[in-house]
Amino acid sequence: MYTLKNDSYLKALLRQPVTHTPVWMMRQAGRYLPEYKKIRSQAGDFMSLCRNPELACEVTLQPLRRFPLDAAILFSDILTIPDAMGLGLYFETGEGPRFQNPIRTHDDIKKIPIVDPVDELGYVMDAVSTIRKALQGDVPLIGFSGSPWTLATYMIEGGASKAFTKIKKMAFSDPRALHTLLDKLADAVTLYLNAQIEHGAQSVMIFDTWGGVLSESAYREFSLRYMHKIVSGLKREHDGYIVPVTLFTKGGGQWLEAMAETGCDALGLDWTTDLAQARARVGDRVALQGNMDPSMLYADQDTIVQEVNKILSRFGHGSGHVFNLGHGIHPDVDPEHARIFIEAVKEHSKSYHL
Amino acid sequence: MYTLKNDSYLKALLRQPVTHTPVWMMRQAGRYLPEYKKIRSQAGDFMSLCRNPELACEVTLQPLRRFPLDAAILFSDILTIPDAMGLGLYFETGEGPRFQNPIRTHDDIKKIPIVDPVDELGYVMDAVSTIRKALQGDVPLIGFSGSPWTLATYMIEGGASKAFTKIKKMAFSDPRALHTLLDKLADAVTLYLNAQIEHGAQSVMIFDTWGGVLSESAYREFSLRYMHKIVSGLKREHDGYIVPVTLFTKGGGQWLEAMAETGCDALGLDWTTDLAQARARVGDRVALQGNMDPSMLYADQDTIVQEVNKILSRFGHGSGHVFNLGHGIHPDVDPEHARIFIEAVKEHSKSYHL
Repeated sequence: MYTLKNDSYLKALLRQPVTHTPVWMMRQAGRYLPEYKKIRSQAGDFMSLCRNPELACEVTLQPLRRFPLDAAILFSDILTIPDAMGLGLYFETGEGPRFQNPIRTHDDIKKIPIVDPVDELGYVMDAVSTIRKALQGDVPLIGFSGSPWTLATYMIEGGASKAFTKIKKMAFSDPRALHTLLDKLADAVTLYLNAQIEHGAQSVMIFDTWGGVLSESAYREFSLRYMHKIVSGLKREHDGYIVPVTLFTKGGGQWLEAMAETGCDALGLDWTTDLAQARARVGDRVALQGNMDPSMLYADQDTIVQEVNKILSRFGHGSGHVFNLGHGIHPDVDPEHARIFIEAVKEHSKSYHL
Repeated sequence: MYTLKNDSYLKALLRQPVTHTPVWMMRQAGRYLPEYKKIRSQAGDFMSLCRNPELACEVTLQPLRRFPLDAAILFSDILTIPDAMGLGLYFETGEGPRFQNPIRTHDDIKKIPIVDPVDELGYVMDAVSTIRKALQGDVPLIGFSGSPWTLATYMIEGGASKAFTKIKKMAFSDPRALHTLLDKLADAVTLYLNAQIEHGAQSVMIFDTWGGVLSESAYREFSLRYMHKIVSGLKREHDGYIVPVTLFTKGGGQWLEAMAETGCDALGLDWTTDLAQARARVGDRVALQGNMDPSMLYADQDTIVQEVNKILSRFGHGSGHVFNLGHGIHPDVDPEHARIFIEAVKEHSKSYHL
């Protein structure tokens, strides 16, 4: 598979034999690393870092220089698409992402332009090409996007939310308007991920951070339906190689069977779902990625190693598991604890692949 | 059962025949009602309202005067116990509850006093007696408490939290300290709920608002274990009548079987769990309460009625369902939408009990 020195991540997603369980961490390029903070302060704000392909490449590679990770993930933000649609993304300290021009009316939705990812998000494509080249075939590069529902929550709420009042008002009182928006976003995400694949991403992941705030039927109608549409529209092969697709709905542990039906290759799991039960439920239809609580990295070495062993044993023998945290690594984690975690996975997983 | 004019709520919790599915709403006494806001502004701050038995009684009864609800719930806060333990509860506008003296060290935990609910939380007991009397046997009165884990999150984080960093640090790096606290809280909650039962609460509910942020094994260790202890220590009969106990872990839909094993009578469900699947999983071990998304009350009349019918049909025929929202009613809901919801349940549920 490719001429990758380490293709364990791609093989595990396709449930092909591996010699250890591959491991990476959501937000592995991030604020818990002092070398990241240094580059981040050079770049200015967060989006300036995302928009600078050389610096984005540098921070993508930083965790790989420290730890024996099995994949790199594009350094970017899930909200680049709405930003390119003209909503004006900015970050307020301690407040998370916000939009200058959130969607208020049906008319705002009609006016949303179709975004050409190569023209409008050229900085992302440049980052993908730059990183892919810099990786020199060591490990695969993961591209990603937010899910249409998750993008829409930020676009309609204007930023992060607790109760998702505005988007739920629209979902339940004017569903047609929301479907118009979600459909545009599904098209935009499909184009965006396909462009990432063409520029060098060897696997893609869709982050549905907020699908879990819906009921099952609303999840199927407003989130899963559009991820399904994206999966159906993705280039699943590029340069003669399969490009595995992973769906991750945080809080989606109750809906794994439905998610597997989209035809994706793997599902991301947060830590609330037991991995043995998840594997029993999805069978060999998809691989599973996850699922240690990121807060476990606050624990001491013995506790971290014990938890790694517990999760490895819950998945059990054979391929089809990519080890990860159940959500992004916390910014105040000691990088040495991340090392303990990653090395424990690589060391202790071998016996599950004999 | 008692001399209640309407005992459908208690009967449904015990899976005895009823003629309609009983309905109440979490936070049914609250800010969406103009008459509540009036009393609230008279009382001053939120805790002054909780501490005044006559006013607490008045706001408890307000929604019952408007709507044909099948139960009343004590107007109080889940954080009265930590407040009585000396942590100094206060509310910051828009910020939710906070503590002046959050728990920082193992020593703080050792110093936490055992709270005598009748002495230290006499205002709650007075409210229970006053409300019970004022209800004149119309509908039963529900007493409640927060779960030990949920109380501990506020006590250790100092208020509401997103990532629960501090308490998880303690859970994973110094579990013994946390267990000491949770054990004290379980004892305090048991005393508190038993005192509510003695003062007139005809059913009790334990709100585990934050159990869902844990992994299954951590949930069992840090939350469920202590709810189990409480359930085992509760007076399950008073004055010759059974006192049903309901456990509600928000985000706990994956762990219903384990929750049912505590010996409680009913489980509260948030809207992410499909009611038909939940019923199939727990069988006739427990009744189920829930589970419409509170945001559905933003929708128009037809949509609300349609959703009520969908949820009724998901539970299906027979007793064992108490209709409720999956979480508290939002403050900006039109009270007339609450009426549509409640009346739809009462009207359309009849055919499921023939």
